[in-house]
Amino acid sequence: MTTDLTIALDAMGGDLGAGIVIPGAELAAIRHPTYKFLLFGDRAKIEPLLDRYPRLKARSEVRHSDVAIGMDEKPSQALRHGRGKSSMWQMIQAVHTGEAHAAVSAGNTGALMAMSRFILKTSPGISRPAIAAIWPTLRSESIVLDVGASIGADASQLVEFAIMGEAMARCLFGLTRPTVGLLNIGVEEVKGLEQVKDAARLLREMKLPMEYVGFVEGDDIGKGTVDVVVTEGFTGNIALKTAEGTAKQVATYLKLVLNRTWVSKLGAVLAGSAFAALRDRMDPRKHNGGVFAGLNGVVVKSHGGTDELGFATAIDVAIEMVRNGLVEKIAEDMAALNSPQLQVAE
Amino acid sequence: MTTDLTIALDAMGGDLGAGIVIPGAELAAIRHPTYKFLLFGDRAKIEPLLDRYPRLKARSEVRHSDVAIGMDEKPSQALRHGRGKSSMWQMIQAVHTGEAHAAVSAGNTGALMAMSRFILKTSPGISRPAIAAIWPTLRSESIVLDVGASIGADASQLVEFAIMGEAMARCLFGLTRPTVGLLNIGVEEVKGLEQVKDAARLLREMKLPMEYVGFVEGDDIGKGTVDVVVTEGFTGNIALKTAEGTAKQVATYLKLVLNRTWVSKLGAVLAGSAFAALRDRMDPRKHNGGVFAGLNGVVVKSHGGTDELGFATAIDVAIEMVRNGLVEKIAEDMAALNSPQLQVAE
Repeated sequence: MTTDLTIALDAMGGDLGAGIVIPGAELAAIRHPTYKFLLFGDRAKIEPLLDRYPRLKARSEVRHSDVAIGMDEKPSQALRHGRGKSSMWQMIQAVHTGEAHAAVSAGNTGALMAMSRFILKTSPGISRPAIAAIWPTLRSESIVLDVGASIGADASQLVEFAIMGEAMARCLFGLTRPTVGLLNIGVEEVKGLEQVKDAARLLREMKLPMEYVGFVEGDDIGKGTVDVVVTEGFTGNIALKTAEGTAKQVATYLKLVLNRTWVSKLGAVLAGSAFAALRDRMDPRKHNGGVFAGLNGVVVKSHGGTDELGFATAIDVAIEMVRNGLVEKIAEDMAALNSPQLQVAE
Repeated sequence: MTTDLTIALDAMGGDLGAGIVIPGAELAAIRHPTYKFLLFGDRAKIEPLLDRYPRLKARSEVRHSDVAIGMDEKPSQALRHGRGKSSMWQMIQAVHTGEAHAAVSAGNTGALMAMSRFILKTSPGISRPAIAAIWPTLRSESIVLDVGASIGADASQLVEFAIMGEAMARCLFGLTRPTVGLLNIGVEEVKGLEQVKDAARLLREMKLPMEYVGFVEGDDIGKGTVDVVVTEGFTGNIALKTAEGTAKQVATYLKLVLNRTWVSKLGAVLAGSAFAALRDRMDPRKHNGGVFAGLNGVVVKSHGGTDELGFATAIDVAIEMVRNGLVEKIAEDMAALNSPQLQVAE
């Protein structure tokens, strides 16, 4: 299967639509020379762009759709308006029928999640899917979930997130027993939300391919204290956006201070390769791709405002998830969780 | 009053206790040449240090206490163990009796909040105090609250936080009508928690000295989109720690990349003043001091691991709050909120 994957792309999604999706797919086509692409969207917009990339064109099939989901449509509205006929719907449908192995869209997150859930359904035993972010850390990268699929989570849903995250870490980082932490305020057992404490108890007792290490705090995410950080979607989304904002803030400070004197400007020129390395390391395009975990199929959400490099990264993430069997790994662990002999350690 | 303030300090609080509190108080004594200090704690530890600072000594009074609250004590345990006789308790008591105008401690946050609440009580109309952080932003500084006084908040508590934050912004930044935003995931009206949506409705309808601008997201904090960011304590604490972690992460990356080649090292030397300015701008000691808002008295929590510079900043924050009447401003706004003719715009 890994030599002949087909990836479905929503060519209408994102702030720039086909203008970044097609060049992004070309980059992915170069990296993965045997893979095929299904491009969903307005043929009149896709084909002129595709003509510029003969390599991609030879391995792509365009599936025309008149309807594109707007970035501001509410999920319920998008489901009504886009059902059956939108590029986003048809892209997910291709994963459902098995025609494609994964779907990638830079479109409306809420609509993409609502449609993915509607068409693909949640995996056995999973009550609610999550969006998992791949977070750059001082150690390497970690998985943080949920970063906004839904608000609030009870203890058993947090446990499900831990399983999805652990499976993702095994797929993406090649670990056999990823470390897992629950995001909390303060590391002492006494602190935190009831559902987080209950989830901690459940995780400690479980025999699954993960090493539950306890509570972690906000600053542990960037340190890379654990491979998988588990939290509910409201807090996770705010943590993600706050980190993005802080990184931009520090980068802006750095630019400001380096431009203050000619000596520091000269220093900045000499240290140019270092700053290029820093920009590279902090480049959000290299960490693009929110994985929809817990569904019967792989769907990856690209940032709406990214460029072709970022979109190609999101395609890479989707490919890794398919190649390493994310859906299967989650299903296996959920089955193990519900099997009585493996359920609880004691 | 502003020419003759008395500040109560818990000389036993923080990772280093008197070792940073006394030199920190000396810095504050230099900045505020007419103010007095009450130093609570073990006389045997305080006095030898105080002998090194004759200026501070001349304006200080040592109040001996045998009991110090440990950094790891649970709040309930600290209340039992430290009631009446601990340095922390006696410091807060001095604010309650009017002997001191404000209290500053680098000690155990949970214990400090529990004792402050027990001794000072919440201000009229305030159901629960909050910890407010002064957050450096690209624009200047903002107030973010609650960053961990308690977990969860209903709509009316979020409104109280908005009022406390607005009063703090008026005290600290000299604004007459600070802008206020509610932290949420997504700016569309449809998204978010029910209590956040309800708070938004209440804030839109109120006539108070604030400009409610709507929902803000995690990345708006660092941008400085609003003067006051309102959220409940779990999310607020995780946002704060995540931002701290991200800032450290970027600073670490920067050091790593600058040390990679001799050319970039040379560049870093030339840009030394710029990096000094960056360090200064990002210096957590310059933004130290969590204000306990909503109590009948001013209590400021310094970071436990800070040094004398940081502790002096926390004293400065406490002084600003007293000088500009934080407690009175909150009380006025709560009274206005509960007065029928001002309550609701319509």
